[in-house]
Amino acid sequence: MKLQRVLQYTKALLADTVVAGDSVVDATAGNGHDTAFLAELVGSKGHVYAFDVQQQAVEATKLRLAENQLDKQATVILDGHQNVKKYVSEPIKAAIFNLGYLPGSEHSIVTKPGTTIEAVSDLLDLLHVGGMIILVVYHGHEGGKDERDKLLAYVSDLPQKYVHVLRYEFINQKNDPPFIIALEKMKDLP
Amino acid sequence: MKLQRVLQYTKALLADTVVAGDSVVDATAGNGHDTAFLAELVGSKGHVYAFDVQQQAVEATKLRLAENQLDKQATVILDGHQNVKKYVSEPIKAAIFNLGYLPGSEHSIVTKPGTTIEAVSDLLDLLHVGGMIILVVYHGHEGGKDERDKLLAYVSDLPQKYVHVLRYEFINQKNDPPFIIALEKMKDLP
Repeated sequence: MKLQRVLQYTKALLADTVVAGDSVVDATAGNGHDTAFLAELVGSKGHVYAFDVQQQAVEATKLRLAENQLDKQATVILDGHQNVKKYVSEPIKAAIFNLGYLPGSEHSIVTKPGTTIEAVSDLLDLLHVGGMIILVVYHGHEGGKDERDKLLAYVSDLPQKYVHVLRYEFINQKNDPPFIIALEKMKDLP
Repeated sequence: MKLQRVLQYTKALLADTVVAGDSVVDATAGNGHDTAFLAELVGSKGHVYAFDVQQQAVEATKLRLAENQLDKQATVILDGHQNVKKYVSEPIKAAIFNLGYLPGSEHSIVTKPGTTIEAVSDLLDLLHVGGMIILVVYHGHEGGKDERDKLLAYVSDLPQKYVHVLRYEFINQKNDPPFIIALEKMKDLP
């Protein structure tokens, strides 16, 4: 047994939650790694909606999907995740966020607390009971701690009858490594 | 998929870490539930060393072991876990703590930060590389928050090259539910 590292645990939660035919959301497409991973999980009868505000990320994600013959089961959308309900109306089984900046790009374009929380709230509405939203919280960059703290305040206040909120964090590591917030929907929210 | 609750995740970590023939420690025998669970995991060729400072707990644990024909593979010791090295000299694969008071007893007898940390430190020495120490941190009682904070300060300072320290906590629950600190030994400490 090993304690699963943050990215490994994230993938394990997604793989255990998502089955073929599901609709899911990648709220921060980035370089498309999670989009492609999700597209494999949902298969040709499911669908991934991937969002990113950067053209560079949208192109990288489309390329990765095409290279892996996964482009038919995914839509890559150049828009912020706070607009998810403009594009997605069916129930979703899972959503994933990687908060922070696009790896390999300039660090000035980052996720922001207001839009992140708006997106989580809308995704909780869209989520199946038993579905899961996973946030990988990078907080070492400028503004990262503010986003982390506002997000933690928001999720800590979600009613436990409706949502279980887990924090999974290695607490003796230097350099602000990412941690996980996982939300499991137990009941439809009032 | 469901997010594993605290006690379920504790058992899963123990079950994935401990194999037949191992030596392990139950640092807080209490009513003997974990002692019996560990005794089943280590089997007739392994051994559980269970500690408790209360006669009532030692008796309850011995009774539970006997009722389940597990008494040959366990030693129940009426002493504090900070004295573990008086009784255990062989390498151990895992240790479990339930911090706080004995369920069903008076709440004045509780684990204390100094002796808890002393025990964790000694158990880290005794632990196999790849082995795990799991602390289920109850902190709702008087003194519980002090123990929690001192313990968190201690484990957060353990060098990450040698020990991975995971905090696993549901953060939107009322009434101070317990959370987990899991320590995985990666290398022998200097």
